[in-house]
Amino acid sequence: MPRYKLTIEYDGTPFFGWQVQPGGPSVQGALAKAMEAFCGEAVIPLGAGRTDTGVHALGQVAHVDITRDFPPETVRDALNFYLRPQPVAVVASEFAPDDFHARFSATGRHYRYRIVNRRAPLAVEHNRAWQVAIPLDAERMADAARYLVGRHDFTTFRSTQCQGKSPVRKLDRLTAVRDGDALTIEASARSFLHHQVRSMVGSLKLVGAGKWTANDLREALEKRDRTACGPVAPACGLYLTAVDY
Amino acid sequence: MPRYKLTIEYDGTPFFGWQVQPGGPSVQGALAKAMEAFCGEAVIPLGAGRTDTGVHALGQVAHVDITRDFPPETVRDALNFYLRPQPVAVVASEFAPDDFHARFSATGRHYRYRIVNRRAPLAVEHNRAWQVAIPLDAERMADAARYLVGRHDFTTFRSTQCQGKSPVRKLDRLTAVRDGDALTIEASARSFLHHQVRSMVGSLKLVGAGKWTANDLREALEKRDRTACGPVAPACGLYLTAVDY
Repeated sequence: MPRYKLTIEYDGTPFFGWQVQPGGPSVQGALAKAMEAFCGEAVIPLGAGRTDTGVHALGQVAHVDITRDFPPETVRDALNFYLRPQPVAVVASEFAPDDFHARFSATGRHYRYRIVNRRAPLAVEHNRAWQVAIPLDAERMADAARYLVGRHDFTTFRSTQCQGKSPVRKLDRLTAVRDGDALTIEASARSFLHHQVRSMVGSLKLVGAGKWTANDLREALEKRDRTACGPVAPACGLYLTAVDY
Repeated sequence: MPRYKLTIEYDGTPFFGWQVQPGGPSVQGALAKAMEAFCGEAVIPLGAGRTDTGVHALGQVAHVDITRDFPPETVRDALNFYLRPQPVAVVASEFAPDDFHARFSATGRHYRYRIVNRRAPLAVEHNRAWQVAIPLDAERMADAARYLVGRHDFTTFRSTQCQGKSPVRKLDRLTAVRDGDALTIEASARSFLHHQVRSMVGSLKLVGAGKWTANDLREALEKRDRTACGPVAPACGLYLTAVDY
């Protein structure tokens, strides 16, 4: 029974997140339906990361087993056919070994957070970025971000609903770069806690706006207290860009 | 009576183009309604370029006269308030001299055309780019594009509906650059003919796909015959990015 590794792009706006759940449409559910329409098998693709409502992906990865042996390109094209007109696309499909697991085999996850720093609301990028009207100093944000890189107890920056056994994570990378009014934050780690990226971005925004110093950010981390976190950044600016194996 | 120069961004998807017309909603009409809601004056903003149905703008420019003297920032913020939730935003507003005319004072117009060159349909960028499945050679397209730069009779590359008095235009710039699966074509000129950019892009795509040589493109130009043009590229990939004065 072949296992397929799928690389998936989606606009998270109309979905109640990645994971199948009773409240509404999910990306995983859309893929499962397309899979059944294509080959008649009721299988649920398992994803590398459970993105929340409104969060996007350019490179989510999932694996799925099918009884029949289709060429990977056929799986990709057939799923894309049955996914229409939903904003979900299988950008790549390949055979994976039997012991490949999209979630447990992952060795790195990469997220991008997009801010558009301007007074006017977003027209072309509506629901694709966080519009922040107050001027942000990206260099201050980049400097402060260094305090979060490394192995830390990220209790301050995880949702109280987070089901991770430990609040300790090793953050490999956290950068902030400005290009015109576009501000891009990139975060990489083996794994993240629930709401970790959006919590870090929300606090970095306070630094960029001059409301927090870099040291305030460091102290918030050291407090290991969820109430020390800045307001969590909205989902619409977040993208799961790639997963390493 | 102060004249305001407005810089406008819009997602062209839900509009029947820039210009007010009976068939459906227009960007110009949306702005006129917002203007009336804001200051009670029935004025029509005049734009630098009449973009077609589905064409986007990052930097359309329009001018408008209002009897009362508001600070430009007030005009910007008030228009954005009344434009919601339509995907139109005034990104800048400033006073302009009485003889400033968004269309006739323009000395340069800049368009970008975005292609995503991949097999999978577009999810995050749906209606924001042209998805082309067949592999395109951007260097071949860039080389061929040079034949179109300069002063030419562009009859081949203009709509039969074009109302321009002369088919002669001076194309200042036409480039094609690939970054991963994103292919960006940039075109600059003092003014363009109707459908000129989309016609040039549609023909360049044939060159990129290996169906035309650069010389075929040159010959199509020299024929001065609309039927020699390749299929016109779809509206959703086109952006009016900036206007010079």
